[in-house]
Parts: sequence; structure tokens; C-alpha cells
Amino acid sequence: MTPPTIDADRLWATHMEMARIGATAEGGSNRQALSAEDRDARALLLSWCAALGLRFEQDAIGNMFLRREGTDATAGAVAFGSHLDTVPTGGRFDGVFGVLAGLEVMRALDAAGHRTRASLELVNWTNEEGSRFRPAMMGSRVHAGDMTLEAALAVVDHHGISVREALRTSGQAGPLTPSPRGWSCWLEAHIEQGPVLEAEAAEIGIVTGTMQARYLQLLITGEPSHVGPTTMDRRRDSLAAAAEIILAVERLALAAEPHGRASATWIENAPNARGAVSAATRLHCDVRHEQAERAAAMEQELRTAIAAIGTHRGVAIELDPYATFRPVGFDPRLRALLRDKAALRQLAARDMIAAAGHDSVLIARLCPSAMLFVPSRGGITHNPREYTAAEHLAQGAQVLLDTVLDLAG
Amino acid sequence: MTPPTIDADRLWATHMEMARIGATAEGGSNRQALSAEDRDARALLLSWCAALGLRFEQDAIGNMFLRREGTDATAGAVAFGSHLDTVPTGGRFDGVFGVLAGLEVMRALDAAGHRTRASLELVNWTNEEGSRFRPAMMGSRVHAGDMTLEAALAVVDHHGISVREALRTSGQAGPLTPSPRGWSCWLEAHIEQGPVLEAEAAEIGIVTGTMQARYLQLLITGEPSHVGPTTMDRRRDSLAAAAEIILAVERLALAAEPHGRASATWIENAPNARGAVSAATRLHCDVRHEQAERAAAMEQELRTAIAAIGTHRGVAIELDPYATFRPVGFDPRLRALLRDKAALRQLAARDMIAAAGHDSVLIARLCPSAMLFVPSRGGITHNPREYTAAEHLAQGAQVLLDTVLDLAG
Repeated sequence: MTPPTIDADRLWATHMEMARIGATAEGGSNRQALSAEDRDARALLLSWCAALGLRFEQDAIGNMFLRREGTDATAGAVAFGSHLDTVPTGGRFDGVFGVLAGLEVMRALDAAGHRTRASLELVNWTNEEGSRFRPAMMGSRVHAGDMTLEAALAVVDHHGISVREALRTSGQAGPLTPSPRGWSCWLEAHIEQGPVLEAEAAEIGIVTGTMQARYLQLLITGEPSHVGPTTMDRRRDSLAAAAEIILAVERLALAAEPHGRASATWIENAPNARGAVSAATRLHCDVRHEQAERAAAMEQELRTAIAAIGTHRGVAIELDPYATFRPVGFDPRLRALLRDKAALRQLAARDMIAAAGHDSVLIARLCPSAMLFVPSRGGITHNPREYTAAEHLAQGAQVLLDTVLDLAG
Repeated sequence: MTPPTIDADRLWATHMEMARIGATAEGGSNRQALSAEDRDARALLLSWCAALGLRFEQDAIGNMFLRREGTDATAGAVAFGSHLDTVPTGGRFDGVFGVLAGLEVMRALDAAGHRTRASLELVNWTNEEGSRFRPAMMGSRVHAGDMTLEAALAVVDHHGISVREALRTSGQAGPLTPSPRGWSCWLEAHIEQGPVLEAEAAEIGIVTGTMQARYLQLLITGEPSHVGPTTMDRRRDSLAAAAEIILAVERLALAAEPHGRASATWIENAPNARGAVSAATRLHCDVRHEQAERAAAMEQELRTAIAAIGTHRGVAIELDPYATFRPVGFDPRLRALLRDKAALRQLAARDMIAAAGHDSVLIARLCPSAMLFVPSRGGITHNPREYTAAEHLAQGAQVLLDTVLDLAG
């Protein structure tokens, strides 16, 4: 019996095969949650897992669980995974790596003929990205009880299609009621989404926790008028107010670097007619910071700026702070274990914070959880040019495998 | 036989009845071109005209011509009218007044039993507003040969419905080939769309001509990235660039007052996902000025500002100056006649420029043309609160009637 080892070529080839589903002209992947592409990606994963004899279970929000039975039926499973869905301008690695690294762990164990004591579960979470259906991390959220199944099913996309309908048409509405599965711990491998590991020539990032993030939805109400005759003093232009807010968010972001971020990303304008001064503009922004109190201060600063913009432009601005993500600290024991396994493989590792949301943030509420990062070229993600070298993927998967073996016995 | 006189109450009641079609909760009207509401408005106009025995003709772009025969079949018709379509946030008077004032002229002549020498034609132009189908003034444009019928029919709205299809489903594709109809002259009555007449307590505006308008469509191309981890120095945010351009347009507008305008009104952002830095933003702006050379200078100034924004943000900006409307000077003889008729009715009149586009701009290429304005409360138009007093509507219609009688004999 050979010791279980990651096959770097197989792992890379698996990524490239998955990337063909929803492949874009720019070289990325577009597999939005519960789309035809997401359905095909899930089917491909399932076919690979079936070849390993993994037991498939699916819950009503479409989360996929692929189980490899251990020798001790009483031990809580060691779980790991990520998500196969992407943003519309997605790359080939974000989320995908965590699922396919987990698959490679299963394959390596299979090839080595190694049976663990505790069972293992590979997970593909539904709608991590939240591009099509808001909020992001929907599957793990429902699993962790942060959102009710009914509320999630009722969410509609831009075309008015509900999650319920998308689950049905994509055949992803499983029979299980979403709920915790008694895992002993959870691990997620992911590309860094930033430039730090590459810049420092480190191979493994040990994620200490996540930034505090506060999401704000704004509605700016001006007054419609005709662009030609309406002099500036008589305009109450909601789009111009939004422009000023977008730049205020940007100034806030520049001041918060490198420990904080702020972004304005989504806009909807009405009447959005070439001949009319804008009357109602919706804008989405977020502020993030490593420290919760600094994130709160950033939001307060933004509110002050917004109020001033509203007053001097004579537009009404409603602000809905609809979601706050508390910073999560990942499990110290698991982090130490990841660090040890990286050191044993002579990989340079460093602690780092995750600036984005991840399913692990939700699962950390249920059981000890941790994340590891691998380098991402130029820190470019959510972009067709997203790239991680095969060697880095393999190194991350090997640390995951070594850690899983330690935990599952 | 009584002299033909406008019936102010009838004219007001006719406006209010028309305003019920597409009435909005805010008190305005939403009758976008070739919608079900536009179709209903056209049917109502037709029923009123049928009661007067007017002869109805319609061309292939849906323009409606309602003819009252004169005694001299060889004389070119005196034509007048405007448009019944509105912007989504439309009021009850913009465009509508020109059509219903023309109807009231026909009714007053009918009531007085007066038959003119030259024939009269009341016109409702298709898609003046351009909110649903671009460009604006489509019907008069095709009539005047400024756009081919085929090009107009191929234009699609936001839902992918073509003008051809909308004409068919609304039953507005008439049998005539759009072309000039040999009119001796053209008159259009319209609300002012500005505050000048009200501020000066004048009743009639004699429109000298229109502003030069230059329309620009921008495509700003940045790069998609993940909002959480992407530090500011690695972002190429097309939405933030758009915000800066919107404010540059505004500064240009403020500097050009009171003789010029500039506006940014329409925006489309991609991927427009809450978790992604924007990668591609489209923006529509226009610059206008009473003097053509000043409008060109404004465009040049905007191009310089846009180039600087593109450079310092590292985003590509394509600029498509897709339409330029040369300033039109309306016919001096018709303007003098309108001024005389106003004076005979003891109405205060003043010359003024039209800042918006109008069908008359196109028709002025075919025959002597002129426009008259009536006051608009607060200068508010393209807005449910658009309002012109019944007395002012009647005064404008009376000047139109007196002028038509003078011209048609």
C-alpha cells in the first residue's frame, strides 16, 4: 500500500475539464448558480465521484454531499469542499479548486487503498457567489440555519425565476432537509483572491479569519425632468448623486487600505431614458475591515457623506444596511495542524485574513473550521484571467490531504 | 356663422380624458411608443376625428394624418400636430397639447361651419420621445427621409421587441410609404418645458430655433475582480470611472449655463454583481448649446476630461458621437405671423429657443415650419407634475387657430 499522494497532473486535468463547462471566449467560466452550466458541472462531479463509489446525498437547497465511509460509524465525518458556481465573469479556480482538491483527496485515498477511521464528506455548496440569487453563500447559510429554506426558495433572479423553480428545472432539489450533519470538523481549500502569497513567494496561506463586512443598499430619489430645457438649478438628478456616492465610497476605501475595503458595485437607474434626468437610482455598496469596530466606523463615515450629498442635491436617500457579516476567527487547533502539515512538506506558509465571504464562515458556527489558500497569479479573481499554477494547486491539495488523514485517522 | 373660437373647457376636458390612458399613480401618463397605452390613445384620437369627418391616413411607421379638405384641391395643406407618446414618467401635456390643440382647431372650425381654402392636416407622429425605441423623433425622421423605414423597423426595445413587431401588434402599420405630403407649412404647439414664460408672465413663446445637441454613447472597459480581496491599486473599476465622468458632465453643464446644457442620463453596468468590481459600463451623455460652435467646444472639453479619466484609472473608454442635431432656425415669416396673432389677442409673447428636440426640427427641412410654446408651471416636464393651466392651453390653441386660418384662408 503506497502512502496517499496528490497527483498534480490529474488535479490539473480535472480543473481543465471542469472549466470547459460554461467556458467563455475570454478563457474563464460562467456557471451561475442553478443554471444549465451549473447543472452540467454538478453532473460531471457526480460522475467522477460515482467512479470512486462515494455515496451521494442532496438536500432541498441543492447542496451536494459525497460520502466516503470510514471504519468507525460513530465518529463524526471530516468534511471539506467549496462551490462550483461562478460569477458571470468567473475564472477556472475560485471555488472550483476547493471541490476538486477534495475530489483529488478522495482519489488519492482510493488509489492508495486507504480507508480512514472517520468518514469523509466532500461538499459542493449551492450558490456561493450570489450573482444570480442574493444573498451569497445561500446553500451554506440554509445548512447552518442562518436563512430559512422557505426564504431561500422564494428568492428570484433578474428574470423573475425563483430559486425553487431553478432547483426544480436543474434537477437539484434533493430530498434531505437542510441541517447540520454532525461533522467533527470542516476544511476549505481556496485560491487566495489577493496577491500576497505570490508576492512573498509563499505556497500556503493559513486563514486566520474573515473581514467584517457590512452591505448597504441605497435608494436615491430625485425628480424626473427633461434634459434639454431643465436648467441645472431645477434638477434633482439621482444618477449624479449616485456618482458622487460612488466616488465617496472609493475615497473611503483608499483611506482604509490595507486593512479595509469599500466598494460600489451594482447600480439600477430609472427612468434610464436618454431624454430624462434620472429620478431614482439604486446602488449597492459594502465596507469591510479586519476589525469590526473599524468597519462600523467606515459605515458611519459613509452615512455622513451620503447625508451631505442628499442635502446639497435635494434628493432623498434611503439606506438599508441589509447584511452584516461578523468577522469569524477560524479554529486555532485546525490552523496549527494546517501549519504543521505545510511545514512537513517544506512549504512556506503564512497567516492571512480572508477579505471575501466564504461558505466556511457559516460552517464555522457548526463545527471547528479552517481554510487554506494557494497563490493566485496577480491576485486576479472573479476574472477570466484568474490563474493558479498546477504545482500550487497540488501543494494545497496535498496539505488538505495530509490534514484530513491526521483528523480522520 | 360665428367666427371660429377655441372652447377652453372642451380643450381641457379632452386633455383630461386623454390623460386617463396610461394614467400613473403619481398623476402623470405613461404611454410609451407603440405600447398598448399608445394604441389606446391613438384609437381615442381617431374616434374624436371620425366624429368631425376627418379623413384618416397612416403610413408604415405609424404616423397618423387626419385631413380636413379645403375648397382648393391644388393648394398645399396647412399641417399641425405633435405626438401622443410619453416618457415612462410622463405628464399630461408634453406632446399631447400639440395634438389636442390641433384637434380643437378642427372642432372650432367645425362648430363655426368654416371651410378653409387649403386643406388642413392634423398629425400624430410616432415615437417622438425615444424612451422605448431609439432614436427619438423616429416618425418625423422617417417621414423627412432622415432615417430609412427599414432601419427604423429594425430598432429593438429593451425586451428585444422590434419597431416592426410593435407596429404590427399595436395595429399601427399603415399602408402609406412614409414621405413628404406637399404641405405648404407646418406648425407645432407645445408646452415650454422650461420656466421662462411663467417667470415673465408671458403667455406665448415664439420659438426661434433649437439648440445644437450632440449625443455621445460611452463604453468604459475596466477589469472584473473580487470586491473583497482586490486592493484599490489592483482595481480597474469601470463604474467608478463612469461616476467621475457623470460629475465631469455636470461641471460642464454648470459652466455652460444659461445658454448650454449637458446631461448623463442612461447607464448600464456589467457584471453588475454585488461581489464584483465593475468591468464594463455604458453611459449616455449629451451636450447642447444655442451656438453650434459652443456645443462642439463642450464636446471637445468633455472628450479631454474623459481621456484623462481613462488614463489615470487605467480603463479603456470608447466614445461614439452617434448623433448631432444641428440648430434649426424656424421660418421668419411664420414666426412673425404667430407674433401678430398673439398681439391681436392681446397676449404677451416673447422669442425663445427650444432646448429639446422636436418633430418640427425634422419637418423644417421639408417646408416652412414654426413652433409656439405655452407656459409650463415651474418648468417641470417629463414628470407627472407637469402642468399647464386650461387658460394657457386655450390661448395657445387660439393663436394656432388664428394662424392656421390666416395661412389656409
